[in-house]
Parts: sequence; structure tokens; C-alpha cells
Amino acid sequence: MTSTSAKHPLSPEAAGRWWPRFVPAVAWMRSYRRADLPGDLLAGLIVAIMLVPQGMAYALLAGLPPQVGLYASIVPLILYGLLGTSRSLAVGPVAIVSLLVASGVGTLAEPGTGGYIQLALTLALLVALLQGLMGVLRLGFLVNFMSHPVLSGFTAAAALLIGISQLKHILGFPVPNLSFFPLLQYLGQHLRQTDWLPLLLGVGAILTLIYFRVGLTNPLKRWGIPHTMALTVSKAAPLVVLLLGSLLSWGWGLDAAAGLKVVGQVPAGLPHLTWPTFDLSIWKNLLPTALAIGFVGYMESIAVAKSLASKRRQKVDANQELLALGAANLGAAFTGGYPVTGGFSRSVVNYDAGANSGLASIITAALIALTVTFLTPLFYYLPQAVLAAIVIVAVAGLIDGQAFKTIWRYNKADGASYFITFAAVLLLEVEMGLLVGIAAALLLYIYRTSQPHVAIVGRLGESETYRNILRHPVQCWPNVIAIRIDESLYFANSKFLEDTVTGLIADRPEVEHFVLIGTAVNFIDASALETLEGLHRQLKEVGVVFHLAAFKGPVMDRLQAVGFTDQFGLDHIHLTTHEAMKAIGCVGGE
Amino acid sequence: MTSTSAKHPLSPEAAGRWWPRFVPAVAWMRSYRRADLPGDLLAGLIVAIMLVPQGMAYALLAGLPPQVGLYASIVPLILYGLLGTSRSLAVGPVAIVSLLVASGVGTLAEPGTGGYIQLALTLALLVALLQGLMGVLRLGFLVNFMSHPVLSGFTAAAALLIGISQLKHILGFPVPNLSFFPLLQYLGQHLRQTDWLPLLLGVGAILTLIYFRVGLTNPLKRWGIPHTMALTVSKAAPLVVLLLGSLLSWGWGLDAAAGLKVVGQVPAGLPHLTWPTFDLSIWKNLLPTALAIGFVGYMESIAVAKSLASKRRQKVDANQELLALGAANLGAAFTGGYPVTGGFSRSVVNYDAGANSGLASIITAALIALTVTFLTPLFYYLPQAVLAAIVIVAVAGLIDGQAFKTIWRYNKADGASYFITFAAVLLLEVEMGLLVGIAAALLLYIYRTSQPHVAIVGRLGESETYRNILRHPVQCWPNVIAIRIDESLYFANSKFLEDTVTGLIADRPEVEHFVLIGTAVNFIDASALETLEGLHRQLKEVGVVFHLAAFKGPVMDRLQAVGFTDQFGLDHIHLTTHEAMKAIGCVGGE
Repeated sequence: MTSTSAKHPLSPEAAGRWWPRFVPAVAWMRSYRRADLPGDLLAGLIVAIMLVPQGMAYALLAGLPPQVGLYASIVPLILYGLLGTSRSLAVGPVAIVSLLVASGVGTLAEPGTGGYIQLALTLALLVALLQGLMGVLRLGFLVNFMSHPVLSGFTAAAALLIGISQLKHILGFPVPNLSFFPLLQYLGQHLRQTDWLPLLLGVGAILTLIYFRVGLTNPLKRWGIPHTMALTVSKAAPLVVLLLGSLLSWGWGLDAAAGLKVVGQVPAGLPHLTWPTFDLSIWKNLLPTALAIGFVGYMESIAVAKSLASKRRQKVDANQELLALGAANLGAAFTGGYPVTGGFSRSVVNYDAGANSGLASIITAALIALTVTFLTPLFYYLPQAVLAAIVIVAVAGLIDGQAFKTIWRYNKADGASYFITFAAVLLLEVEMGLLVGIAAALLLYIYRTSQPHVAIVGRLGESETYRNILRHPVQCWPNVIAIRIDESLYFANSKFLEDTVTGLIADRPEVEHFVLIGTAVNFIDASALETLEGLHRQLKEVGVVFHLAAFKGPVMDRLQAVGFTDQFGLDHIHLTTHEAMKAIGCVGGE
Repeated sequence: MTSTSAKHPLSPEAAGRWWPRFVPAVAWMRSYRRADLPGDLLAGLIVAIMLVPQGMAYALLAGLPPQVGLYASIVPLILYGLLGTSRSLAVGPVAIVSLLVASGVGTLAEPGTGGYIQLALTLALLVALLQGLMGVLRLGFLVNFMSHPVLSGFTAAAALLIGISQLKHILGFPVPNLSFFPLLQYLGQHLRQTDWLPLLLGVGAILTLIYFRVGLTNPLKRWGIPHTMALTVSKAAPLVVLLLGSLLSWGWGLDAAAGLKVVGQVPAGLPHLTWPTFDLSIWKNLLPTALAIGFVGYMESIAVAKSLASKRRQKVDANQELLALGAANLGAAFTGGYPVTGGFSRSVVNYDAGANSGLASIITAALIALTVTFLTPLFYYLPQAVLAAIVIVAVAGLIDGQAFKTIWRYNKADGASYFITFAAVLLLEVEMGLLVGIAAALLLYIYRTSQPHVAIVGRLGESETYRNILRHPVQCWPNVIAIRIDESLYFANSKFLEDTVTGLIADRPEVEHFVLIGTAVNFIDASALETLEGLHRQLKEVGVVFHLAAFKGPVMDRLQAVGFTDQFGLDHIHLTTHEAMKAIGCVGGE
């Protein structure tokens, strides 16, 4: 079937040369109108205002110096702006990818050290290569193997881990690197070591952020502030707490006087060209993390990109997105950054503020570049507790218990895979937890199909339709059993099929004809075929005639190809259940 | 649905007390007739004749002293005879389980040592516990997760490994413990070190065995030898080569004179009571092997038991079989044996020779007991080359290239999982290979369902049936697209569904109504539900009416439960495709 990848916003026919196909920017540049500029400018500005604090905070979460988060917000954004097919996706450092970096690189090097930074660069390169490869090989579909419940379960658990990991900056005492529950226990036991100063600043920041998010919107409306202005103000919250926090600790010299942990020296100027490590043994160690980041990052990104695009009847090209994200990570790897992807909250803001093209991303990048060139001295006194508060408030929104309730209510298997992923991520190491969740979802699906719904059917009145005897008042015949099995027949349910049929036959010795109805059978694999042959033999031995009815064309073609139909007897294969009943003689051939 | 486990040969009603249900022997003992005896006697005898050489040969293959194979052929057979539900299954040492023992225990201890034997006992205990547990928890269905192609691919590769592993005994030079291809290479390089004596004996034995198997049957018929007699003679082949080989090496003192490797001292007398090791750390190391043996052994056993039972309209109870095999392995663990299961060839012979009950197994056990008590001195001079020849001829039959061809011709995915398993078992370590095969089969199935068959349908003549526009001459309407998706909707194909629908809509701007037909949809999981909600939103935004038609009762119930149907609009949900078309106004409401 046709897939979105076939209907690229800029189709080859439209572009004369080959390269525009790979540089979607050509499309919006050609068609760019003056009227698009204000939206792009405002969006670029607001996203930059959010990105400065978030970038530094997420870098810290990833175990990296704050400037790395800013570096990762320049070149990658420009590259995505040129290569991405989404008009409103805001690429850059995000919380969950930062967590994955911390958990993956943390086992290989000491956070904050040069070696650690080097590994983060290398990780970005690997992510770039993986995503690029997936894009070229059009493997975007691979992400389908991660179900929504698994992704949301993972996100919720990851958000919890992130929140907990930031508590130490607010409580202000050193915390060893522990997994979730031991960490909770440790925090509980050492709570009395809490340092009131970071606690005060952190809690203050959290309250301010929450106020900006929930409390401020209505007043702004009341005072008749225009939407764009109000949006800017409310989204400036992190920047505001950042500045307030810095002012306080600078004014009272809290770092020197009270030993408050501050960001400290942030090197000024644009990032230099950096070289990731090309060492296979190191690559091998980073590969699992790179895979997790490549997948999760892409899924988070494509999900928000699609939902935003559909609102404006625009399209995103799954595989081009992989290439664009790959390019962004490549940029990060060579300009002192670390793995990036499209973030949910910033993208929504970008869209809200009226981003019309990749130009918005490029403007954001330019503003971040100016920041690292001129404003880094401002961040010296910035308390880490404030950055932690920014992270905590940012991820709090990701923990959505309602989602689990809904999923569980709809379907236990999905609920189970959500919960298994959630628990596994908290109990095991992050990537392993994700892997366990994916496997669980697949096995649960296989298990479900291994015990399909089976209906014994009868004739509905004088009609030609045959329905479940339990749901409808239907006519049956003592010497005939007709069952409809509501699943494709394959290895996981072939034994079930055999047991079901032999069981029914054994229960009803008077039966002379057995009709298997295939309306819901989309496929018969080799194992199920063997089972059907076996059943055919067994039924013959006990003197029961085996009929197949209403199997689909494609399925029948297959059976014909291996000579099953001839061996089975064409006069026992019927186009419809009614045909079968006529052949058996239950109903007249009228 | 009812399953065979519900119709046990001896149903509780039939038996007054509870225990007969767990001891099927009570059934055949109560109903035993004098006329059954001859069949049981002959079958017991012939199987014993096969089992003496095979038992010793397989023990050697497993890295154990020959008598262990005989010990494993006494108590386990009696226990299965009492607890098994198959009348003709012949339990005991088999080639593939022996290979698994060798590969699993071989990494933990030196073959032939006391520690090695102890581990084999412990392994038998673990297998017993696993099978017993599966039986009690009625987990027989678990084996469904192993598809036929995976099992045959595994069997073929295992047979190959076994054959190669035995070559060293025939070539007569020491061979290090290598994996398949390195081993081939090593044998090739050292071929000139071949010792002519074991080679001569081995090849001679192989030719004799082949002659007995293929050449002898017709002459015996011609000479008018009665079937049972002929069967006995032809199945005695291993015993014959065993005796001939022993005679030669004894007569010419080949062991002393020419350094021919012989079995040597085999302790006389019945096995003593043995205690497996109860040490969790050791259990942990043996668990993977125990799982592999438990599963593979059970599958091999249940397959042959079922096919033989169906020939006589008898039934085997999957879960009771697990209990019986578990008991047999428990017996092996405490009487100096090693893991056992129902063997294919011996069971067929047992059936052929007319085994009517578990008594046949018990008779075999008695004969083996006599053998170990009185005949072990005979085996002193038995050349290992002859035992190797017996193994090679036994497993040669398991390598069935035809099976692969058929599977591949029928369905590439099944062929692939056969081949992947085959290759993985040869390239990786045996259990890992099996695991890879199982995983591959599951993923291939998921992959197949991730790109289901989709048909755009139109009205067939004036009928109420709507068929694939590519297969039938049908009527369509420019403003309507109706598609039938031939698969359950779940996470692996939800993106495919979305891309398909959006693609079709984008291609046909004139479309006003989109009808999704659910006749083949057996299930909609949470991910697919989200996708449907998303599509509903998107189509509304582009001004296309979304219709659902002919979805099944159970599926609709679910959607109703979460309020999807109301939100979707009940007037856009139709019982049949025809109803939908009427509602849209394409066809008259006649």
C-alpha cells in the first residue's frame, strides 16, 4: 500500500534536481512569504527562552557540564531546520534522552570528566549513524515494535527516575549512584542532612514555575495581554527563576558564604569542532544506549511531529525525519554537544507561537549562539537547585496515571505491558527495562492469539448467514458441527485448534460432518497446515467428513500451491458456509 | 473451549477414588485382557534389544559412562509405564537430549568424571521439576511458542552436530571440543592421523546397520518370515553389530594389540540409589539446559505419542504426559541415570510390534535390568567406534532436507525461521541457537502482521457483497473509499493502518466518505485504538466522513466500553458494508 513516505511534501516531480528531495528546506524557502516571518521570529524567540535553562538543566541531568546542553542547541537545530519535514518540531536536549545518556555513559566514566564528555559525543555519533541508517534503509517501521503502552509506561518510569535524581540538588547532600528503590530509602534515611538553603531556593523555584504554568494564564487574559505576549511571559518562567536564583546567590554571595552549589565558570564563546572517538570496543559498549536513544528519541519526535502536522494538514515523512534527526545528532557529535531529539513541550510551544518553517529552529539556534557568546558570565552564580527545580517541573507532566487507568480499562494485556515496562524500568537498569517491556508486549500479543475466540455457528432463520449459537437464535443439525475460529492459524494456536476440534468431536459421537469456517483466518502458517493435515487424517479415521468453508482467496491460493486442497478433496472445500451446508444436505439447494 | 486435557482416557467419574486419575495404569490394568500380553511382550523385547546398544551409545554421546544410559532405561520406563497416557511411547535416553546434556554440562565439568555424572543427575532432577511444574500448572500450551519449522530446524542441526561429534571415535584420533565449523576444519586438517582400525570397524558397522535397515526387509519377506519375526531381526541390527564388534576386538585382542578404544569395565548389578546435588548456584547454572531439555524433550515426546495414539483413536493428555515424563526424569535422577524422554524411532517400533499398554515399557525395563545384572561383562571389548556408528546411523534419519524445501515453498517466513534456527544452532551454542530460532519465529510473525493485506472493495453486481476491486469486476463511487484490512489491528500495524488511510485520502482529494471494513479484525489493542481516534480527528479536519462497517460483536463491545463508539458517532458505525453504502447514499435502500 501507499505509505506517507511516498507522498513527501516536496515530491521529486516538483523539484527539478535530485537534491531538493533530501533538503526539504528548499520547499519552504522557495515558497516562503513575508507573512511567515513574524510567526517564525516569535516562535524562535520563545523556544530559545525555554531552551537556555532547559538545555543547561538537561545537560546537568545527563552528567555533563551545562554549556554542553547549549552547544547541543545550535548546530543540531540548524541541521534539523534544513532537513526536517516538520514545520514545528523543536529539536534539542530532552529529559528522557538525557536520562538514557546518564545511565548509559555513567557506567563507563565519571560524570563531569573529560572522558565522560568524550563518550557523550561518541554516543551522539552512534545515534546519528543508527538513525541515518534506519532512514536510508527505510526502517522507520521498526519503531512499530514498541507499542504505545510500552512507550508511555517507559516515559512515566523515566520521568520518576529523573525527578528523584534531581532531588539531591534540592536536598543539598551528596547521594551515591543508586537504583530507584534503594535511592528512595537512602534519601529517607539521610533526610535530616537536608541543607535548608538549596531546599528553600529549589522549592521556591518549583512554586514559581507552577504559578507561571497554572496561576498566571487567567490574570494575563484578564489584563487583556495579547496571546503571543502572554505565551511569551508564561514560557519565560524557567528563564525568570534562573535569573532570580542567580541574582539572589550573587547578591548575598551564597556560594561563598553558605557553600551553595552554583553552576560556576561556563566558558564563553561558540563550541569548537570536536572529534568523537572512533574505537570499536567503545562503540560496542555504547551501542545498547545508542539503540535505546535512537528508538525512543525518534518515537517521541515523530509522535509530536505527526500530531502537530495533522492539525495543519501537513505531512511528515517518517524516513526523512530519521535522516534529519540523524544529521542533528551528527552536528551535536562534532560541535561539543550530546544526543538530541524533538522535544514535546518545546515543539508544542513552537507550534503555538506560530512557527511556519524550519526558519524558527534556525532563529532559536542563532539566539542560543548569541547566549553562549555573550551571556555565559550571567550563569556563574546560577544555583544547581534552581536547574533541578526546572527539570522536576518539566518531567512532572510526563507522569500520567490516567493514561494507565484508561489503557487498563480497555484491555488488560495492554495494561499489563504498560505496568511491566514501568516496573522493569524502575527495578532494572533503564535500557534493560525498556527491552523487557517490548518483549513482554510481543509475548502478550502472541499469547492472546494463541487462544483465539471460537464460535460454534448455526443458520440464522432462513437466511444464508451463520452466527454464533450463543449470541443468536439459530438452527443447527445434530450430525454437523460448524465452527468459526476468529484468528489466523499459526504455530502459537495450532495446538489449540487441534484440541478444540478433537474435543468437540469426542463430545459428540453422533457428528458426521465438521465444518471449519475461515472468514477470520488471514493466514495459515506451516505449523497450522501440518495440524490441518493431521486433523484431516484423524477425522477420516473416526469417520467424520472434514469441510473447509469461506476461506479467503489469498489463503486458498497458498494451500493450493502445496497441493493441500487436492489432497483434502475439492468437494469438501466450499466458498461459503451456506454452500457447505447445501453440500452436506442440511439445507435445500433452492 | 474444551481441550484434550478435559477428556482424560480415565475420567474421574469412571474411577471411584481420586488417585486413579493420576495413575492411568489403573485404567489399562483394570481392562487388561490375556490377548494384550503377546503384543506387550514382543514390543517390550524388541525395544529392549534396541535400547541396550542405543542407551550405551547415547550415554557416551552425553559424555557419560555407558552404564548410565542403561540405568536411565530401567526405573524411568517403569514410572512412565504407570503414569503415561500413551500406550506406545518408548521412554529412555535419546540422541538430542544427550547432545543437550553434553553441551550444557560439558561447560561445567570434565566429561566422564564423577562431578560430571553428578551434574547429569542434578540436571535430570531439574528437568523433572520443570516438567512436573508445567504439568501441575497445566502449562503444556507453552510449547506452542516453538513452531514446527523451528523444531525441525533445530533437530536437523542437532543431528548434524551429533554425527560430527561421533566421527572422532571412528577416525580414532583425539579431537578438541570445538564448535561445528572449526571442528570440520580440524578434522579436515588432521585426516591423515586417521587410525585404520576404528575406521574399518566403524564403517563396517555403519554398512551393516544400513543393510539391516534397507537391504534386509525384502529378502526376509521373500523367505516368508512372519512380520513380527522380521521386525525383530531388522531391529536387532545394533545389537548384532555390537556383538560382532565385541567378538572381533576380543578374539584378536585389538584393545591390547592395536590400542583400539573399547568400552572397558562396565560395573555389573542394578544402579544404587543416587542423590542429585541440592545447590542453588549449581541449579542456576543448569537451568537453561534444563529448560531446553524439558521443552524439546516434551515436544518430541508429545508429537510422536499423539500421532501414534490418533492411529488407534486413543488420546494422550498433554498435561498428564508432562507429569509422567517428569516422574520418569525424577526416577532417572535418583537411580544413577540422566535426562530421558520419549524417543521417536523406538516408540514407532513399540507401536509396530503391538504394544497395548504401559506393560510393554515395564517389560523393557525388566530386560534392561537383567542385562545390567548379568551381561555387562560382554561389553568390555565393545569398540567405541561401533557405538559411534550406531549413533550416526540413528541420527542420520533426522536430517531431512525435504522438510525444509516443503516449508520454504509453502511460506518464506517459516522457511526463514527453519533456516535461522538451523544456522544459529550450528554457529552458536546449542541452547542459544534454539532460543534465537524461537525469537526469530515470533518476530517474523509480528513482522508479517505488521504489513497486513489490504483490499479496496466495491459492490459485486447488484448483490450485498463487496469484494477486492483487483480480483472482481465491482462497482465503485468516486466520493467513497471502502477498504477491508485483513488483520487484527494492534501496535505493530497501527502505523501501517494510519499511513494507508492518510495515503489513500491524500491521493483522492475528491473523496468524502471513508469506510473501514472490519470483517477480518479479531481484535483492536490500545495502540490501534489511539490510531483510530487520531484518524477520526484527522479525517474530520480534512472534511472526510469516517465510517466503520461489519466489525465483530466482541470487538465492538470493547470499543463501546471505553466510549469510543459514542465519540465516533453511532450513525457512522454500520452492521454491514452494504448498510454503510446505503447510509452514504451510494445504493438505494431497497
